[in-house]
Amino acid sequence: MKTFGIAILGCGTVGSGVAKILLDMRSTLSDRSARPVELKKIVDLSPAKSSERYNIPLDLYCGGGKNLSPEEASGYISEVMSDKDIDLVVETIGGTGDYLQSVILDVLKAKKHVVTANKAMLAERGSVIFETARENGVALGYEASVCGAIPIIKSIRESFTGDEVREISGIMNGTSNYILTKMELEGIDFKQALKMAQKAGYAEADPTLDISGGDAAHKLAILIRLAFGKEIEYADLMKEGIQNIDKEDIEIANEMGCTIKLICYAKRIDGSIFASVKPMMVRRGNLLSQVHGATNCVELTNKYSGRHYFIGAGAGSLETASSIVADIVFTARYGVAVDSSPRLHELELVDADHFQFPYNITFSTEDRPGVTGLVTTAIGEQKINIDTVSHNRRNKKDAVFSVVTMPCTMHQIRDAISAIKKNSPGLLTGEPKAIPILQ
Amino acid sequence: MKTFGIAILGCGTVGSGVAKILLDMRSTLSDRSARPVELKKIVDLSPAKSSERYNIPLDLYCGGGKNLSPEEASGYISEVMSDKDIDLVVETIGGTGDYLQSVILDVLKAKKHVVTANKAMLAERGSVIFETARENGVALGYEASVCGAIPIIKSIRESFTGDEVREISGIMNGTSNYILTKMELEGIDFKQALKMAQKAGYAEADPTLDISGGDAAHKLAILIRLAFGKEIEYADLMKEGIQNIDKEDIEIANEMGCTIKLICYAKRIDGSIFASVKPMMVRRGNLLSQVHGATNCVELTNKYSGRHYFIGAGAGSLETASSIVADIVFTARYGVAVDSSPRLHELELVDADHFQFPYNITFSTEDRPGVTGLVTTAIGEQKINIDTVSHNRRNKKDAVFSVVTMPCTMHQIRDAISAIKKNSPGLLTGEPKAIPILQ
Repeated sequence: MKTFGIAILGCGTVGSGVAKILLDMRSTLSDRSARPVELKKIVDLSPAKSSERYNIPLDLYCGGGKNLSPEEASGYISEVMSDKDIDLVVETIGGTGDYLQSVILDVLKAKKHVVTANKAMLAERGSVIFETARENGVALGYEASVCGAIPIIKSIRESFTGDEVREISGIMNGTSNYILTKMELEGIDFKQALKMAQKAGYAEADPTLDISGGDAAHKLAILIRLAFGKEIEYADLMKEGIQNIDKEDIEIANEMGCTIKLICYAKRIDGSIFASVKPMMVRRGNLLSQVHGATNCVELTNKYSGRHYFIGAGAGSLETASSIVADIVFTARYGVAVDSSPRLHELELVDADHFQFPYNITFSTEDRPGVTGLVTTAIGEQKINIDTVSHNRRNKKDAVFSVVTMPCTMHQIRDAISAIKKNSPGLLTGEPKAIPILQ
Repeated sequence: MKTFGIAILGCGTVGSGVAKILLDMRSTLSDRSARPVELKKIVDLSPAKSSERYNIPLDLYCGGGKNLSPEEASGYISEVMSDKDIDLVVETIGGTGDYLQSVILDVLKAKKHVVTANKAMLAERGSVIFETARENGVALGYEASVCGAIPIIKSIRESFTGDEVREISGIMNGTSNYILTKMELEGIDFKQALKMAQKAGYAEADPTLDISGGDAAHKLAILIRLAFGKEIEYADLMKEGIQNIDKEDIEIANEMGCTIKLICYAKRIDGSIFASVKPMMVRRGNLLSQVHGATNCVELTNKYSGRHYFIGAGAGSLETASSIVADIVFTARYGVAVDSSPRLHELELVDADHFQFPYNITFSTEDRPGVTGLVTTAIGEQKINIDTVSHNRRNKKDAVFSVVTMPCTMHQIRDAISAIKKNSPGLLTGEPKAIPILQ
């Protein structure tokens, strides 16, 4: 059978991993694909640097190994598009710019399959990309875009086809989880933990995208499209990061038998989708609470098969590359039969603050008798039932206490807090902090 | 496109779940398969009983809903084989008899795809079945045969194709795990816990296959064939169940920061496969230790992508059925491209007792000075390094103490014990118990 030719565009951390696996496993991959699979070309601006990591032969690089100007690279990319020997293009350039989007669209229009790890592009501008792949009868592989090595995309697309995903929750950002784990285990504050994450290579010099929940939200948006068939506007997805989690929150969670995790959460209820990325207190009985360090975990709850957990490496050069190579083999093997575009349904994205969770609300108040009554009365007046009130945190000049509610919405909680402020001015000595609890 | 016709042979707990999902999700399944998928016929001895569970229409049953004699059922099975409208046959009869094997082979020879949950048949007599499927260019789906709802077969076959599985460990028998969990959490002994499992419907009246490790060994044998490409003789696979685990073992494990689990373990090292099913002490840092009750968990360690955990329901009517339906959709969608037979390699199955683990050895001895020296000297003479010795269990008339070794083989341990018996007759007041420790 005709050789299945591969080109890699952008050969950095992940792209070079792909090249290494394609070269190391060439005969096995051909066997698994039932046809020869061959890496034909690499386009990269700095081949010398790129080839170093895994000893990738320089003659695979367009230009023979010399550094390329952007214009030269662009020219070679055009050559790839018209090369009859290239069947599939791996996009590991990264970014969400117009130029890159047009490159991906042009590759698809040239009837070449595309495999990418570019979660930001798929989450923010994926609609036209999926549509173009479908129109041109080629596959779009994106296993590597969600939680690196965890095979969650193919599991939903190929293994849960006799079922219906109802709920997604997960730890999808390794940097945030590493920081929260360090804060919990070593009793340090956010800033110290962030520095440790940067030192250990788990956080970038500018860690904003990771700690703000943006990166996790990219992955959740992709999973929502796949599992629920809903294109959401990335900007509309509620995201809250871990920047405001302090030592005290972690201690309170600990006292309650919970661990604070940055949780991607989405649930389909009839015609609506509720979704958010925010820190939650996870009960110790839930395995998500046991996932430590940079590891990722996706939990799915299905209609027929119940609860599933997928746990594995969420990032890394070879870890992510192995998912890309799996997409290559899948495409080589099943070819045009692979329609990668999820079916879309009419579903409404619900304002996350309208969804019900049990909450832990921590109040910092004047330390005088009667405070609990005022606070819990205001909560009750918003029709929120209270589960427990914990009063054991009078280690400051203010009283600090926690109220755990039965399921209610963030809107109800905000109204209760406004009422307390209005009716008892000066009672609250700080802004109350409400964190949802995941069972 | 032509309708993809399904027949179900044997409509008990799992078969009726398959019928229900095929009927409930008919239009979605057709959409996902890119062709109409239709349940055409069911062959079952007692339709009235079978249809009750999920209101399956009696007119789908061959014979119109009346009870069938074995001869009549056999006749209808022959009709299914020659029915041009049937593309795929679901085998949910169960058992490992000659008749059933010949039915499966005849269906494959009639060029119909087969999907089965029959782990015992595939583990004990799978070789000829895989071969016949390959020869006839039809697919053999068996996702449901290993850990029910967990998509481990397709993950290895379709998602880890850019990688190499190096090690498998897992909790693959829900009954045993339920019993061990009850023993640990409620401090009860094996017999009491078994009764609870039977009462809760997690253990059969005759629980032998589950508690002896036989059922778990079936699943491990199937995974070894798929992940390592090794056909092992099921009889050669070392299996040890949980019957001999007592309260004291669980307490000792607990003191050591471990939980006792029935662990399926297999590792490929160069040209050899080491494999066993036996109770192990699992360190709390390993997520396998956190998997409780009837839940299953498969842990894979891959060359490039590292450690993965898959956790979910290992049994159940609709849980297992959803995996069967996923195989139906996969086959309808990708058709003959699906070659289900793992490539086989020349590998040798190593005697499990030759493989190195750290062990916890519990000794029950006379309670007098010098005992520790005699025991640890004998262990040292077998070139076994000792990690820790714990002496805190003198609550009986005998001394009871635990020795944790560095990695060594069961052969070495047996030799050490023989030496103790020979050199210090009467010192041991009971047979020492050695349990491997999983990190």
